[in-house]
Amino acid sequence: MVKVAVLGYGTVGSGVVQVIEDNCEVVSKKSGTEVRVKYILDLRDFPGDPYEKLVVHDFNTILEDPEVNVVCETMGGVGAAYNFSKQCLLAGKSVCTSNKELVAKHGPELLQIAKEHDCSYLFEASVGGGIPIIRPIMDALAAEKLESILGILNGTTNYILTKMEKEGADFDTVLKEAQMLGYAERNPEADVEGHDACRKISILASLMLGKTVDSEKVYTEGITKITSDDFEFAKKAGYTIKILGVSKAQGSGAALVYVSPFFIKKSHPLAMVNDVFNGIFVTGNMVGDTMYYGKGAGKLPTASAVVADVIDAARHVGKNVPCYWDAEEADLADIKEASFRYFVRVKADSLEQIKGIAPGGKVVDAQVSSQAGYITPVLSEKVFAEVQEKLGDGILGRIRVYDAK
Amino acid sequence: MVKVAVLGYGTVGSGVVQVIEDNCEVVSKKSGTEVRVKYILDLRDFPGDPYEKLVVHDFNTILEDPEVNVVCETMGGVGAAYNFSKQCLLAGKSVCTSNKELVAKHGPELLQIAKEHDCSYLFEASVGGGIPIIRPIMDALAAEKLESILGILNGTTNYILTKMEKEGADFDTVLKEAQMLGYAERNPEADVEGHDACRKISILASLMLGKTVDSEKVYTEGITKITSDDFEFAKKAGYTIKILGVSKAQGSGAALVYVSPFFIKKSHPLAMVNDVFNGIFVTGNMVGDTMYYGKGAGKLPTASAVVADVIDAARHVGKNVPCYWDAEEADLADIKEASFRYFVRVKADSLEQIKGIAPGGKVVDAQVSSQAGYITPVLSEKVFAEVQEKLGDGILGRIRVYDAK
Repeated sequence: MVKVAVLGYGTVGSGVVQVIEDNCEVVSKKSGTEVRVKYILDLRDFPGDPYEKLVVHDFNTILEDPEVNVVCETMGGVGAAYNFSKQCLLAGKSVCTSNKELVAKHGPELLQIAKEHDCSYLFEASVGGGIPIIRPIMDALAAEKLESILGILNGTTNYILTKMEKEGADFDTVLKEAQMLGYAERNPEADVEGHDACRKISILASLMLGKTVDSEKVYTEGITKITSDDFEFAKKAGYTIKILGVSKAQGSGAALVYVSPFFIKKSHPLAMVNDVFNGIFVTGNMVGDTMYYGKGAGKLPTASAVVADVIDAARHVGKNVPCYWDAEEADLADIKEASFRYFVRVKADSLEQIKGIAPGGKVVDAQVSSQAGYITPVLSEKVFAEVQEKLGDGILGRIRVYDAK
Repeated sequence: MVKVAVLGYGTVGSGVVQVIEDNCEVVSKKSGTEVRVKYILDLRDFPGDPYEKLVVHDFNTILEDPEVNVVCETMGGVGAAYNFSKQCLLAGKSVCTSNKELVAKHGPELLQIAKEHDCSYLFEASVGGGIPIIRPIMDALAAEKLESILGILNGTTNYILTKMEKEGADFDTVLKEAQMLGYAERNPEADVEGHDACRKISILASLMLGKTVDSEKVYTEGITKITSDDFEFAKKAGYTIKILGVSKAQGSGAALVYVSPFFIKKSHPLAMVNDVFNGIFVTGNMVGDTMYYGKGAGKLPTASAVVADVIDAARHVGKNVPCYWDAEEADLADIKEASFRYFVRVKADSLEQIKGIAPGGKVVDAQVSSQAGYITPVLSEKVFAEVQEKLGDGILGRIRVYDAK
């Protein structure tokens, strides 16, 4: 018998209780033992809730109960969540979490504590919601040297970009609509500026490298500058626009990790990942390209991933489920040293100028009034910065182009 | 230290040796112990091969060597492969296999022996080549009640269908080309008649249900009757044609399992799975839709999946990695009781007749000379058989239409 405590009875926490209870037969069968929720920690009371009797307000009730061997941390944040997770692991209780912020910030430390105390720190739900991605990277692709991870990792921005493409609408209009539908937060910065995707690609890059990628050092560009005109040009040239988290192995054992909007070919499997769905494209040296697709957020998909971890923890009570992610900082390449092709949107009378400064590219004629589009040849970020400077006011926008190699 | 024996030094077997050796550092790190190949069993000698000294001809050398704790069965077939696998498991040696035929036929028996002898029978490579799919179903989606599995499971037929769509070519022409390129066997029946896909969906359905789906009882229809005209109509109506392995849970605890070509909407994620790639679309009651994509065959992708299993076996020496698949036969629904919409290709002068017999459908006008297309409303297989009979010679072809629900 495994007794579970759920820390935080919000959206994901209540989903976890629901998945364990609604699917209790399959959860217990897969765990090889009966799995039951014993406590729910929350500051609030939930009168009338079917599980109101399980609610406790004192964390120590959970910490001091030797019957509790698995704890689900669904509180979010890096304050109390960090403190509680650490104490549980020090007490030999496995922790399963959906808290990407905490995993990105303190993952290696908590993994190390788990290892030393014969329990596990599991975080499948922290990236890609219900999409199995942590486990495929760690287990199913265990024999691979991973060459790159490329992900649509944020449902809100993907919803916005999909709407902009399909309806020709502007960023602001679609954002407002997404906020009304509950797909975007009132304060949407973490999503639209790419910070959420940045934490997720940092976690995936850390697993890819086995070392720590500090999310604060990851170049991150959001989607606030993308316009409906950009989509007109993209469509004409056979592309769509997606914001991608990228981790690309460099020859030297380093990796280039960043978040950026991209022109991506309509024929690329990631191009069909639309609306609030996420898709993660992983390339290994033996297996080649693989992709994982599903709902990257939402109460039940995320809770399902937490409970998959509960099952894993329940199968391994008293043992550590290994994770290869050391505290040592990974060697990161600087995006300034990287090279891309760039889609450039310019005033119509600047087209000849950019063709002159960055010759050998491709004109995109989308018949957008008084504008022209141009895709440069491959240029380093440094050289492109010079191009941009020379164009001055003539340049209206630029988006990197994703080329497979 | 884990010592591995590889049974069969053909395409996959030599790939396994290559993956373990080329990626030895990552393989040993993930295993938590050094992993080395000690023996390669084959009837042939391989003079000049870098691993020729590891080749043995007598299976007993492997069976009787207590140092060997993991065996890769990459022989294929259900004769010697079955016998050797069984003996290894009885001796407590874990077996990792790419042999879908053997897994489909004797999976539950071998899993039971593994369980009783504290070792593991692992078969990630048996479905979807390098695509992680067995593990996601068993572990990452462990908390789910699976509602359906829908897969493009055979690279050869997907290559043929993709070529037919893109080039407007006929089945026979493309098959010959595929044979020349080595994408199809000289005797292509197992692929083009759907038998290979049938074994794979039977394995996935067994895992979904936790009981045994006998592949010989699974309705299987191949792609030999698909014509370039069908693609003309499909394109016009917004569809493409894919051969899918399907396992759909029925309310009663049973499942409907079958293999059939389908009209599938161009906007469905499986529609972009082209060429030799495979894609598997899995729907759970909590997580909703997820998809897994990658190379479904080939030496290194398949070998990579075998070695992922070697790593899992190496982590669990002396223990059983559980798999929920009982010998008890699953309750299968009869496809004759199922209902679909049907695309029907008829002689032009039979269009009015089919509109009369199966009213409420949709005419597809693809301007194919002296032919007409019609998509019926939802009909049971029984009723459609009557429609077909009434049309007699007027009917030129029919393909089921995949509707999400």
